[in-house]
Amino acid sequence: SSGEVEVVIPGATSYNGLNLVPQMGWDNWNAFGCDVNESLLLNTAQAMVNFGLRDLGYKYVVLDDCWSSGRNESGYLIANPVKFPNGMKHVATALHNMGLKFGMYSSAGKWTCGRFPGSLGYEQKDADLWASWEVDYLKYDNCFNQGQSGTPKLSFDRYNVMSEALNKTGRPMVYSLCNWGNDDPYDWAYTISNSGRMSGDIYDQFNRPDARCPCTESIGCAWPGFHCSVMNILNKMAAITSRTMSGYFNDMDMLEVGNGGQTDSEYVVHFSFWALMSSPLLIGTHVPTLSPANLAILSNPAIIALNQDPSATGAVRKWQYFMDPDENGQGEIALWTRDLHNGDVAIALLNAANSAHTLNATMDQIFLDPRTAGAYKEPVQLRQSWHVYDLWANRMTEAEASAIINGTMNGTAAITNTNSTINPRVTRYNATSLSYEEGLKNNATALFGVRVGTIEPAGTWSVEIPRHSVKMYRLRSTGVETVRTRDEL
Amino acid sequence: SSGEVEVVIPGATSYNGLNLVPQMGWDNWNAFGCDVNESLLLNTAQAMVNFGLRDLGYKYVVLDDCWSSGRNESGYLIANPVKFPNGMKHVATALHNMGLKFGMYSSAGKWTCGRFPGSLGYEQKDADLWASWEVDYLKYDNCFNQGQSGTPKLSFDRYNVMSEALNKTGRPMVYSLCNWGNDDPYDWAYTISNSGRMSGDIYDQFNRPDARCPCTESIGCAWPGFHCSVMNILNKMAAITSRTMSGYFNDMDMLEVGNGGQTDSEYVVHFSFWALMSSPLLIGTHVPTLSPANLAILSNPAIIALNQDPSATGAVRKWQYFMDPDENGQGEIALWTRDLHNGDVAIALLNAANSAHTLNATMDQIFLDPRTAGAYKEPVQLRQSWHVYDLWANRMTEAEASAIINGTMNGTAAITNTNSTINPRVTRYNATSLSYEEGLKNNATALFGVRVGTIEPAGTWSVEIPRHSVKMYRLRSTGVETVRTRDEL
Amino acid sequence: SSGEVEVVIPGATSYNGLNLVPQMGWDNWNAFGCDVNESLLLNTAQAMVNFGLRDLGYKYVVLDDCWSSGRNESGYLIANPVKFPNGMKHVATALHNMGLKFGMYSSAGKWTCGRFPGSLGYEQKDADLWASWEVDYLKYDNCFNQGQSGTPKLSFDRYNVMSEALNKTGRPMVYSLCNWGNDDPYDWAYTISNSGRMSGDIYDQFNRPDARCPCTESIGCAWPGFHCSVMNILNKMAAITSRTMSGYFNDMDMLEVGNGGQTDSEYVVHFSFWALMSSPLLIGTHVPTLSPANLAILSNPAIIALNQDPSATGAVRKWQYFMDPDENGQGEIALWTRDLHNGDVAIALLNAANSAHTLNATMDQIFLDPRTAGAYKEPVQLRQSWHVYDLWANRMTEAEASAIINGTMNGTAAITNTNSTINPRVTRYNATSLSYEEGLKNNATALFGVRVGTIEPAGTWSVEIPRHSVKMYRLRSTGVETVRTRDEL
Amino acid sequence: SSGEVEVVIPGATSYNGLNLVPQMGWDNWNAFGCDVNESLLLNTAQAMVNFGLRDLGYKYVVLDDCWSSGRNESGYLIANPVKFPNGMKHVATALHNMGLKFGMYSSAGKWTCGRFPGSLGYEQKDADLWASWEVDYLKYDNCFNQGQSGTPKLSFDRYNVMSEALNKTGRPMVYSLCNWGNDDPYDWAYTISNSGRMSGDIYDQFNRPDARCPCTESIGCAWPGFHCSVMNILNKMAAITSRTMSGYFNDMDMLEVGNGGQTDSEYVVHFSFWALMSSPLLIGTHVPTLSPANLAILSNPAIIALNQDPSATGAVRKWQYFMDPDENGQGEIALWTRDLHNGDVAIALLNAANSAHTLNATMDQIFLDPRTAGAYKEPVQLRQSWHVYDLWANRMTEAEASAIINGTMNGTAAITNTNSTINPRVTRYNATSLSYEEGLKNNATALFGVRVGTIEPAGTWSVEIPRHSVKMYRLRSTGVETVRTRDEL
Repeated sequence: SSGEVEVVIPGATSYNGLNLVPQMGWDNWNAFGCDVNESLLLNTAQAMVNFGLRDLGYKYVVLDDCWSSGRNESGYLIANPVKFPNGMKHVATALHNMGLKFGMYSSAGKWTCGRFPGSLGYEQKDADLWASWEVDYLKYDNCFNQGQSGTPKLSFDRYNVMSEALNKTGRPMVYSLCNWGNDDPYDWAYTISNSGRMSGDIYDQFNRPDARCPCTESIGCAWPGFHCSVMNILNKMAAITSRTMSGYFNDMDMLEVGNGGQTDSEYVVHFSFWALMSSPLLIGTHVPTLSPANLAILSNPAIIALNQDPSATGAVRKWQYFMDPDENGQGEIALWTRDLHNGDVAIALLNAANSAHTLNATMDQIFLDPRTAGAYKEPVQLRQSWHVYDLWANRMTEAEASAIINGTMNGTAAITNTNSTINPRVTRYNATSLSYEEGLKNNATALFGVRVGTIEPAGTWSVEIPRHSVKMYRLRSTGVETVRTRDEL
Repeated sequence: SSGEVEVVIPGATSYNGLNLVPQMGWDNWNAFGCDVNESLLLNTAQAMVNFGLRDLGYKYVVLDDCWSSGRNESGYLIANPVKFPNGMKHVATALHNMGLKFGMYSSAGKWTCGRFPGSLGYEQKDADLWASWEVDYLKYDNCFNQGQSGTPKLSFDRYNVMSEALNKTGRPMVYSLCNWGNDDPYDWAYTISNSGRMSGDIYDQFNRPDARCPCTESIGCAWPGFHCSVMNILNKMAAITSRTMSGYFNDMDMLEVGNGGQTDSEYVVHFSFWALMSSPLLIGTHVPTLSPANLAILSNPAIIALNQDPSATGAVRKWQYFMDPDENGQGEIALWTRDLHNGDVAIALLNAANSAHTLNATMDQIFLDPRTAGAYKEPVQLRQSWHVYDLWANRMTEAEASAIINGTMNGTAAITNTNSTINPRVTRYNATSLSYEEGLKNNATALFGVRVGTIEPAGTWSVEIPRHSVKMYRLRSTGVETVRTRDEL
Repeated sequence: SSGEVEVVIPGATSYNGLNLVPQMGWDNWNAFGCDVNESLLLNTAQAMVNFGLRDLGYKYVVLDDCWSSGRNESGYLIANPVKFPNGMKHVATALHNMGLKFGMYSSAGKWTCGRFPGSLGYEQKDADLWASWEVDYLKYDNCFNQGQSGTPKLSFDRYNVMSEALNKTGRPMVYSLCNWGNDDPYDWAYTISNSGRMSGDIYDQFNRPDARCPCTESIGCAWPGFHCSVMNILNKMAAITSRTMSGYFNDMDMLEVGNGGQTDSEYVVHFSFWALMSSPLLIGTHVPTLSPANLAILSNPAIIALNQDPSATGAVRKWQYFMDPDENGQGEIALWTRDLHNGDVAIALLNAANSAHTLNATMDQIFLDPRTAGAYKEPVQLRQSWHVYDLWANRMTEAEASAIINGTMNGTAAITNTNSTINPRVTRYNATSLSYEEGLKNNATALFGVRVGTIEPAGTWSVEIPRHSVKMYRLRSTGVETVRTRDEL
Repeated sequence: SSGEVEVVIPGATSYNGLNLVPQMGWDNWNAFGCDVNESLLLNTAQAMVNFGLRDLGYKYVVLDDCWSSGRNESGYLIANPVKFPNGMKHVATALHNMGLKFGMYSSAGKWTCGRFPGSLGYEQKDADLWASWEVDYLKYDNCFNQGQSGTPKLSFDRYNVMSEALNKTGRPMVYSLCNWGNDDPYDWAYTISNSGRMSGDIYDQFNRPDARCPCTESIGCAWPGFHCSVMNILNKMAAITSRTMSGYFNDMDMLEVGNGGQTDSEYVVHFSFWALMSSPLLIGTHVPTLSPANLAILSNPAIIALNQDPSATGAVRKWQYFMDPDENGQGEIALWTRDLHNGDVAIALLNAANSAHTLNATMDQIFLDPRTAGAYKEPVQLRQSWHVYDLWANRMTEAEASAIINGTMNGTAAITNTNSTINPRVTRYNATSLSYEEGLKNNATALFGVRVGTIEPAGTWSVEIPRHSVKMYRLRSTGVETVRTRDEL
């Protein structure tokens, strides 16, 4: 009837209509901190285009802290004229011309973390300025917040001022909260933003505890800190995995892949889980000097397809056992699973212990949730057989990645470039041409890795996994029965 | 004197005069989630009548989330016209005609958990609409609450708006809070509502810890979550058992009996303790397809009589020992006891360990509270002998339950239907004809199970109990001395 | 100069000038709960006079919950006319005529804990009424507080309304908070009240943990609960002992001595520590039927002199070792010490383990605080010898206590009654005639127990102590050097 | 452009432009408590001058609690005329004439901790008065704060009133918060003050746990208490070390060196770490009677140079192992490191275990942070060799310290006084003549201790360390490559 307005369709939208799947891109902080300038951004952007990263979905080029040099007498921020001699709009235009988007940084405080002027009390002025610069994205930090924290309400109210200011500009801008999980943003931020950090800052270590990151749980963490390891952040997600949803994502922080502090297999774990958990994927290293191995990790379309799956959910930790500790005193094995949009299921068998172990995933474990959610009749999944696809089996070779980096192979639009012994149809993907959602519908080869077996009803999948490594699988039912999906908080 | 007004008699009323004993009924969420429509409700209601459940006291048919399709331009909610083609008042009338009551759902937030419009800011409009539909009950959730939490005051104030709105309609509606124990509602909600959830959502597992339900205590739980097991929720009650009272009940969440995730003896534990703790009893499965075994559990009048006892209190955990863990790493034995309105005492000996054990309950343990509360003279209970009634001894047979389900035996008004080898006087009860309070006064056979022995002064009751099972007893003094009761918070 | 106003002299006063040493008296709750009436109060009062308890300092007769029957149309409370047929002022006058004072009860909530009308929103009306009844004392509870808690500020503001209302009446009334340690009253209540409960309710057990009293620390206790044992409450005091001071006392709850749940030596521990910690001493049993043994405990002037010492401080737990657990799984030994006003030192050697142990107290332990507070020169105490007085050595015999109870010996003014083989100068004390402060100055025999030895410099005091018992000593320097006292929070 | 205003340069300023390196001085509380008067202050000041302490940087003479005698009828505080017969301005002038600065004390509460009038509600009057007295510094306590705590916002708002009042006077005054870490001041106080206590009060013990200091972490500590040991406070710093920065310092409380409760090596640990962590350094003992050993500790310029380093940061605990407990049940070894302003690195190898141990520090541990912060290329530090300077190697001898105390050697301006076998160029320093920043640039001998070796790339530094001792080193690269510094919160 004409009287109906604003029907909210579950799962179909977000507070501003943006970011229905997690944002992807690059942010300078992890590798460069305050050393920012125009050429860093534009050189990085060009490399992202050249290496095919843009077309894999890495669209946002985010300029982090330390870009300003103060406020003018009207209260508007001034871009540092030494670092950005052509101004910010010039940067935005250049990025837009490359098919990329421009992200900006500020803090919901008196100062930014680097002690440049913050936006607290200047929200509308700042939002208006960014809109005039054609900014597409705001990372909004929590430093120097004048004590306006301590209850969800205090934090919500503070962050909401910017949320409303951004909307008032009329320009679509993804709004990414960076308050480190303070006051439990996963419990209130989805109505006012597009993503929210759920931990203190990451650092480039796989599983080393650091006194500066004192919490091992996101819940009730009184001091998020920084120097949080990959495993620290991953395990903090276990309790709050349900609070990631289309339009709002728990942000596990920027990627460290490429920064040198972890082994190749540890970076694979890091990237795999950030993708699986629907975390934003923001590259955090120097792109132009990426190694072939690291480019191959960041470019795996079968893993990115998990991240960009329209289900927009996090994975569930089905079990975790502590054992066999490493040199940092840490050791565990775990099974994480996630139901995907098309009825497929992703499973990750993680060996974060100190030596190789055989891990097992049973059908009962994989389908625990349908077994326990209103299963007054037996869930159909348990009666089905499931094909198992190894999602890292088609990782790009060093040769292929080197060719892209060297410019001897076209990094973009790989699908149209098949004149070589390398078959880019299985290693690369152009999401600019065909979204992951459509690619999955079309069974695009690059999104499925290699089929390595089948799990039968009541069966178990067993695999030996080396130290500090993960096996990532996509399971696809061989049957045809429709599975009823449920949404639940 | 004529000057006296509003005398509050302890224990005799509630904030709105309703729900002096816990509400009973059915809610669709556990089994159906968002898949709601008129026929599900009415078919379920008819089965509840046919199977005798209505007359056992299951009166409220509660429609959970996902029933609306938005707000109209006047700000009033619209029932989804596909799911409810005849409108909500039609549903209410049909239920009323069956002798049932109609429950409705919303959230004290911007959206419901399923992201339909919530009632925050629309409380009076929504309450008025529900009253106009002749709704009898509101389940009021906590999703998308705009950060209005973090202190008892913030949650109290938010939930109180709806409390006052409901009262203003003039229509009696039971007000059931569903804020998962956030901000300790057991400490403030009894003056504004009729029940309050004290934990994250239940799931259909007996004792499996799940990362999504991180707390093991209700107190100070920063993240209630969901996927909380039966034992997790039960043990969360131990600290707050005193904060259940006539008119306001700690809600342990809807029943999972019938959903397939637990064994028969585990469902017996689940149902027994939900009843014993004076939790609301809301069936959470598909009633028309109930198995005979599950109908027999839900239909035990001797257990329901504990729940509907006018004492309206929770049981006390007198001891708990962790031992003999099961496949989930969990194992315990425990004794819970509860003083009943007529001087009887309920005791539950729980074996949640991995194998059979002999458990003992001593007179000193059973009567700890009178021994320690102002006992400047020895409590009379310790000098008495007590008959012991096994409350599950008369559980309906498969044959009897099957006959009811098949319609070959009248499920309602069983007391008048005695022409068979089955004696329904000992297995069934019609609370519509005779309240449990009256039935207890009259010593109605069905409310007492089978007498299996006597405990003498200074004695001990010993019994072997299988794995994951409970023994529920009613103790009745053989003596005549009156016991002074005390009320204490 | 004439311009000086309101000089606050440290330690010399309180918010209202009252209660410079802890209040002593009787409260009906522990033994009688809601069963209150005029004759209970007056009969108890008469026994307190007869047994010499009044003259030992037990002055306040506190009527607890359940005395009202509502509010009149002007909003004033009404005393229940059945329980108090002559009205409250009659009770007050009768008590005053006996040389006693009258205490009243209410709650800073909508209802009292027993669900009678509370004072929230009616503070001035209620204070005025009590003043008109000549009430001398208010116990102010925390039930049904409408969620007005969660930060110190919320609780402070709520309790402060009554504080100001009492002051506005012009009648001196001791203001005793009963908010169970919620929101850390020991951190804010001393500017607005005279004492504050620091734990959930006591129950009559020595050291049995109970699920309803979940905290073992007062600090950050999210759920004070009730059914807290003597040892649970004592150990909660260790962290906050400094926040007891002249005019405001941490209230460990009413005494259970006489209620039958503990052994004689356990009651001695209970009473000794309540006295030593400067807790209010409110008898919580039926006085007219007190046993001789229990009267002897409650009547030990050498112990009461610790409680009424003008230092008005708590004792410090110098060490605690967990060992030798009892049937409740609890076992510890500990040393507590306290500096007294005249330079004496009290020490308590506690054996709460399951069998007898020899305990040692060294000079270094006893004088830890002077050793570590600004000791740029060696503290004089370590160079001195100290006489050791056993404060329970002169406990009244059964014969003497029986004679008092039977009325064959004058319970009051014992000092003037010496014509018997019993020498009351060593067992009893009349604080109405001579305050404890003056008695200590005069070296009144009854306040010192029996001298049992001397500790030399660098020495150790060793003593074997039976299971669940305490040795209480007063140490008095044999030297003459003055010890500088310090005040520190 | 002329439109630019108020550019904030990271790390270059503070809220009021003061205290870019930690304040140094003396405060009477630890040694004298309330026993304050004019002569104590002026005699101490004279000794500070005579002993060379002023010229080492100890500039602030802070008068703690108990100096007032009330407020006059205009609401202004009155200095106690007995303790300060010439008034406060006289004291300030005398101190200024000695080249010292004058610090004052109050509390953000109704009363000070000693129950003298507090400044809550009188902030501007008190700030104006102090400015008129030419006060240079305010220590602002937290006692009797009327419950205005419980969230960062409540504490921020309360302390901010005084912050603004001080600024409004126009007189530069260092503003030193003393709220014991309550409500996490390290997260909000840097925009309104110059330092903030992060723990309960220190006491003069190395590592003895005390029930009155219940927290072992600063984060989320619900009860800071007092009687916190040196090691307790040090370890509380590990999580919050990043929240010390130029202009705002985490205050570990006043020094206990000289008060007699610790051994010489324990005082060396205490002083070394207070310096290393950039804590304010306030001497807390009686200066005129300092022993030579204690003067030598407080006068080590090589250690003080760490404290006054322009980097103004805290050290990081790289590892900590619990082992070999002492008589208090405590034992640990640990490595702490800190990057200094000129590229040097300070490392502290701490043996807080019960016997001597050989400790190792590897290059990987020392340079963990550059290795893990944006290290997309290998950090230059790992390729360099580092000279190792032992910063306690040139500790003043007893003879030299005695000569200063006896007045036979000039304690001030030691650099100009070289006519003796003692070479003060290596033991003493005059920061009044040459700041530590300049001295470091000039490689002043006294700031470097003795070079004791070199660490090569991939090397390890090993040293045996006695019980309860520390080795403090300054590492200086032998190379010339510039190291990029990063600022991060």
